Amino acid sequence: MSNSFGNLYKITTFGESHGTAIGGIIDGCPANVSLDFDAIQKEMDRRKPGQSKITTQRKEPDQVEFLSGIFEGKTTGTSIGFQIVNTNQRSKDYSHNTDVYRPSHADYTYDQKYGIRDHRGGGRSSARETANWIVGGAIAKQFLKNIKIIAFTSSVGTIFIDKPYQDLDFSKIESNAVRCPDEKKAAEMIAEIEKIKKQGDTIGGTITCVIKNVPIGLGEPVFDKLHAALGQAMLSINAVKGFEYGSGFCGAQMKGSEHNDIFNADGSTKTNLSGGIQGGISNGMDIYFRVAFKPVATLIQKQDTIDSKGNLVEMQGKGRHDPCVVPRAVPIVEALSAMVLADFYLQHKARK
Amino acid sequence: MSNSFGNLYKITTFGESHGTAIGGIIDGCPANVSLDFDAIQKEMDRRKPGQSKITTQRKEPDQVEFLSGIFEGKTTGTSIGFQIVNTNQRSKDYSHNTDVYRPSHADYTYDQKYGIRDHRGGGRSSARETANWIVGGAIAKQFLKNIKIIAFTSSVGTIFIDKPYQDLDFSKIESNAVRCPDEKKAAEMIAEIEKIKKQGDTIGGTITCVIKNVPIGLGEPVFDKLHAALGQAMLSINAVKGFEYGSGFCGAQMKGSEHNDIFNADGSTKTNLSGGIQGGISNGMDIYFRVAFKPVATLIQKQDTIDSKGNLVEMQGKGRHDPCVVPRAVPIVEALSAMVLADFYLQHKARK
Amino acid sequence: MSNSFGNLYKITTFGESHGTAIGGIIDGCPANVSLDFDAIQKEMDRRKPGQSKITTQRKEPDQVEFLSGIFEGKTTGTSIGFQIVNTNQRSKDYSHNTDVYRPSHADYTYDQKYGIRDHRGGGRSSARETANWIVGGAIAKQFLKNIKIIAFTSSVGTIFIDKPYQDLDFSKIESNAVRCPDEKKAAEMIAEIEKIKKQGDTIGGTITCVIKNVPIGLGEPVFDKLHAALGQAMLSINAVKGFEYGSGFCGAQMKGSEHNDIFNADGSTKTNLSGGIQGGISNGMDIYFRVAFKPVATLIQKQDTIDSKGNLVEMQGKGRHDPCVVPRAVPIVEALSAMVLADFYLQHKARK
Amino acid sequence: MSNSFGNLYKITTFGESHGTAIGGIIDGCPANVSLDFDAIQKEMDRRKPGQSKITTQRKEPDQVEFLSGIFEGKTTGTSIGFQIVNTNQRSKDYSHNTDVYRPSHADYTYDQKYGIRDHRGGGRSSARETANWIVGGAIAKQFLKNIKIIAFTSSVGTIFIDKPYQDLDFSKIESNAVRCPDEKKAAEMIAEIEKIKKQGDTIGGTITCVIKNVPIGLGEPVFDKLHAALGQAMLSINAVKGFEYGSGFCGAQMKGSEHNDIFNADGSTKTNLSGGIQGGISNGMDIYFRVAFKPVATLIQKQDTIDSKGNLVEMQGKGRHDPCVVPRAVPIVEALSAMVLADFYLQHKARK
Repeated sequence: MSNSFGNLYKITTFGESHGTAIGGIIDGCPANVSLDFDAIQKEMDRRKPGQSKITTQRKEPDQVEFLSGIFEGKTTGTSIGFQIVNTNQRSKDYSHNTDVYRPSHADYTYDQKYGIRDHRGGGRSSARETANWIVGGAIAKQFLKNIKIIAFTSSVGTIFIDKPYQDLDFSKIESNAVRCPDEKKAAEMIAEIEKIKKQGDTIGGTITCVIKNVPIGLGEPVFDKLHAALGQAMLSINAVKGFEYGSGFCGAQMKGSEHNDIFNADGSTKTNLSGGIQGGISNGMDIYFRVAFKPVATLIQKQDTIDSKGNLVEMQGKGRHDPCVVPRAVPIVEALSAMVLADFYLQHKARK
Repeated sequence: MSNSFGNLYKITTFGESHGTAIGGIIDGCPANVSLDFDAIQKEMDRRKPGQSKITTQRKEPDQVEFLSGIFEGKTTGTSIGFQIVNTNQRSKDYSHNTDVYRPSHADYTYDQKYGIRDHRGGGRSSARETANWIVGGAIAKQFLKNIKIIAFTSSVGTIFIDKPYQDLDFSKIESNAVRCPDEKKAAEMIAEIEKIKKQGDTIGGTITCVIKNVPIGLGEPVFDKLHAALGQAMLSINAVKGFEYGSGFCGAQMKGSEHNDIFNADGSTKTNLSGGIQGGISNGMDIYFRVAFKPVATLIQKQDTIDSKGNLVEMQGKGRHDPCVVPRAVPIVEALSAMVLADFYLQHKARK
Repeated sequence: MSNSFGNLYKITTFGESHGTAIGGIIDGCPANVSLDFDAIQKEMDRRKPGQSKITTQRKEPDQVEFLSGIFEGKTTGTSIGFQIVNTNQRSKDYSHNTDVYRPSHADYTYDQKYGIRDHRGGGRSSARETANWIVGGAIAKQFLKNIKIIAFTSSVGTIFIDKPYQDLDFSKIESNAVRCPDEKKAAEMIAEIEKIKKQGDTIGGTITCVIKNVPIGLGEPVFDKLHAALGQAMLSINAVKGFEYGSGFCGAQMKGSEHNDIFNADGSTKTNLSGGIQGGISNGMDIYFRVAFKPVATLIQKQDTIDSKGNLVEMQGKGRHDPCVVPRAVPIVEALSAMVLADFYLQHKARK
Repeated sequence: MSNSFGNLYKITTFGESHGTAIGGIIDGCPANVSLDFDAIQKEMDRRKPGQSKITTQRKEPDQVEFLSGIFEGKTTGTSIGFQIVNTNQRSKDYSHNTDVYRPSHADYTYDQKYGIRDHRGGGRSSARETANWIVGGAIAKQFLKNIKIIAFTSSVGTIFIDKPYQDLDFSKIESNAVRCPDEKKAAEMIAEIEKIKKQGDTIGGTITCVIKNVPIGLGEPVFDKLHAALGQAMLSINAVKGFEYGSGFCGAQMKGSEHNDIFNADGSTKTNLSGGIQGGISNGMDIYFRVAFKPVATLIQKQDTIDSKGNLVEMQGKGRHDPCVVPRAVPIVEALSAMVLADFYLQHKARK
């Protein structure tokens, strides 16, 4: 159950950071979608470790190898198997953790749930899994050619972009290591992450995602509301603690007379506090939402913790970890969004 | 698809506010659960309209009638059919809306999606649907006897409870109309709602939910993370714009050294910024989360809008609507939480 | 889980023969399907008890009442709730069975599985459930206007139609109580059933179903083969022991050179031993299959059996039961076929 | 959708005979199952081509490589990824088929459904896919240690075993190339297959499967009847045209007084025409069923057919194909049975 995502456009995945490979199966992609493999790899590269000085220095090429479902560059309509070989299994980095429960990681809950744990790494809780999602999302993006999905870092720690997304130049997102379209704020965020990294500490942040050109009518009125599916998707990303769309938590402080989006004659709305979704169904306006990421739990500092026998021990992270997960999570937010939209698009098409 | 919720404990629902009845089918409840029908009705009464002066004055008894799956007061393990007759179909209240798209409602998206709409009411987007969920949740609560699920109003507009939940006396929740355990804040909230109501306006708010005694090990590490399921559930409730659990959006401003929950020798943690879930799996600490509700879209004020032909028209809500949805949404948050936990509990049991 | 059928066109059902009502929810029917309610009721009447002298004499009007999802005679695209009130709960008929396990019924397995049983009737194993399926199928038929689904009785006991279906006049099916298009054989079958009935015994039989005008391309190549879904559907009907399509079990005795269907230039085939499905996918030729029904287990004879304590006891069926289930199962075979095709049609449309 | 099988024990697969590899993901296998890898490979070897003179002479080692979900020889409870490299892609064998629709294959339906086809092979319709199922089944067997699943060839063409399965010595099944426990009939079947092979023709047959020690209570009373799931599974195997369980099609000729299984005091039954399942639920008696396989469609003979433009052409199979699919299908029947039982076992455990 827990390793599949989606209904009509579905990805099922496997793999741990310490095995031979991770990978997955994409089921439900329509036939005859021409694939741009460079574009797929480019998405992989946006997520891969070692891409800049503010990410982990672990190096993994993260090259995706397709095993089925594609013929002469086009999807055949059958299941697309793929794998990403793990080239960099430096298990020495982790060997000290054999029997120790890292604070705010899943080591303890894993042991309690399964009664067995591959202590060489984080098992399925490793963020390495998200490389699989990038593949599913990159193909979904190519299937949904007209829909534009743009995510970016909107805060790191207490440094926030202080403009509405409409005032940002999205072409700047990839121009800096932190993936923030406001170049001044980007510089501050990078400085903050570097400072935090030197302290052996980590820092949280938020990502905002904007989706343009969504057809009207995606989403279901009761249990498969489009924003509920987007929320579930985002809450599946490691370290995510919150999701809000449209007016979000701020909307909860507002009055109806301030919050209602008044219609233009063509059905578009003058404001968009609804965030492009009304009654769970897309209304053609921009969809936008914000995702909160906690600070990475692995610190390059001493921490008190326990081992599996309940002994109090001291540990210190030594691995090559991200001081801030947010910059590398930007393409993950986009990938999951693309898969959700592909799924809902197919579902809508079925009944239209 | 869109009318079912859950996997092993599943509810499927039907009904519009203007039909004969709404209802549903609960599938997967284990056999031999003794049902306390008064407790079920009590949950219904917590949600029903007309319960206090700060809710809609529409009166509906909301009595649930069970049609199958129960024998001599116990569940039989087969599907439980139920219905709630609509006694109060004052369609006059809505007749003026025949052809008008109410701002920030689902009228427009419905018409665009389906090409047909029962304009006598909100269709499946009516919050009346949530009465069905109360039934599913009330039975789930009885199945999960040891787990305590407590939701309450934590803010109305800009009036917030300013204490951690641990300092609140939950026995006060039902003592006031707004369902806020802080009696002083409750009085302020009620006054605020009354003021807003007089203006023909509406106001948003937040609900906090705390879940105690959750067994360790519920939730899956990749796509069925426990908090992702809770988030999806909450985002299914009408008017919800955001969800956060544990440290939530605040956590995104923190450093790892502040955020990590250090273990006690018994596996419990000294702090609980994780919100009772680590790596998607419950760790036995309290689960807590917060849900943001936008202000109700129906105003008893003039609003500009359009009709289905794109003509600009003026409308004014006349129906009996809630000035603030939050007090009546408290039992809904609990009901959905209970269904999620029942589902994950069964899933966990399957593999233990 | 066990009370839902289908994916994109899905029915979920509830109800026992001894409750107030049975019913269900149809989810996924597209919007704007005009419904002919007389046609739906006519299908109900083909299944209902008491319709002829060779069926049970129990009288039930089996009137379906729709509760949602329909507006001004058209589907709205939302879930269609319906119920069928049980008017004839003559529980006296069954009272002697309180604690006795009827041979070849589900009483024993129910008690073992659930540890509780509503001993007033057959619970969810009662064939009364199939009335719900008729509703789902009747609506699916109206959605799939161009597809013709024709089922008929092809054998009773050892009396078989000895012609290929192409030589039969389907307009005769409803002209006789046994629903056999071969009038001579029909008379023999009726005589056989009457004889068996007088003996207090029961008799098995088979139903053949032919489906015309199926679009090419329905069905999936691996796990959702169209014939596998049809087979599963048929094996869900009470008393069914076997399913074969196309050449069926006879095909297993043939050579490839006899069995292959040679193409015409237009892609149709000269023969149709494939039964309209190749590689799990419809090829536009007639789909046809055959379903085997065992004799009804309730006899109006003395039988040795046991009670729930393991005591050997003697029992005698007294209820009003069918001597042969086949005539009333004909519309059930059609209904399930229609739902399978609606489901696959929508799935195909999603990706086309 | 179409590439997944099962609910709580689920396999999702990918791969074509002409790609680099086939493989799959097993999701839901409980943690801490000790795996015997030799036993898994032995099941692979029972299915692999080239194993005897009556199967295709194509040689493929069919070695399964596990990529995740296993640690120190035990399952970890997470998804098990695996692949089987295609070592023998002699695409020359197929090159003549580029544009020709082979009779009674899926070439035509594929092209019509997807509008694209990898004409180097049978795509997902290739029986090579079933190697993936063996992996899923072999692990399910190890999880279900106490349940014994025994399949065997019960007929080839018109040569049938003429004894009830209780009179057969199952230890002989693997002693002959056709996997028939009746050694005299086995010799006749082998001679028949050799004769057919010399003619460049193929022949159908049946497989019987017996399952012992199934716990009472598996299966659901309405839509997930145990036999319906087994039937669907069997109808998913390439070339299968029919399924019957217990008395099957013969039961349709019987009277109730002959067919009912009378109870012993302990709840077992004196006869077992029910085939171990009553009301869709296992009753603890042997489950047994029979599966009909049509003759393989690829002939080493000239056949008339058409190409994709509708031209009438003549073709002749040249590849290395099985003259009779039945001997190699025996382990496939067992594998799918094991996966169905694992799925239902977990489902039962969830609610017990």
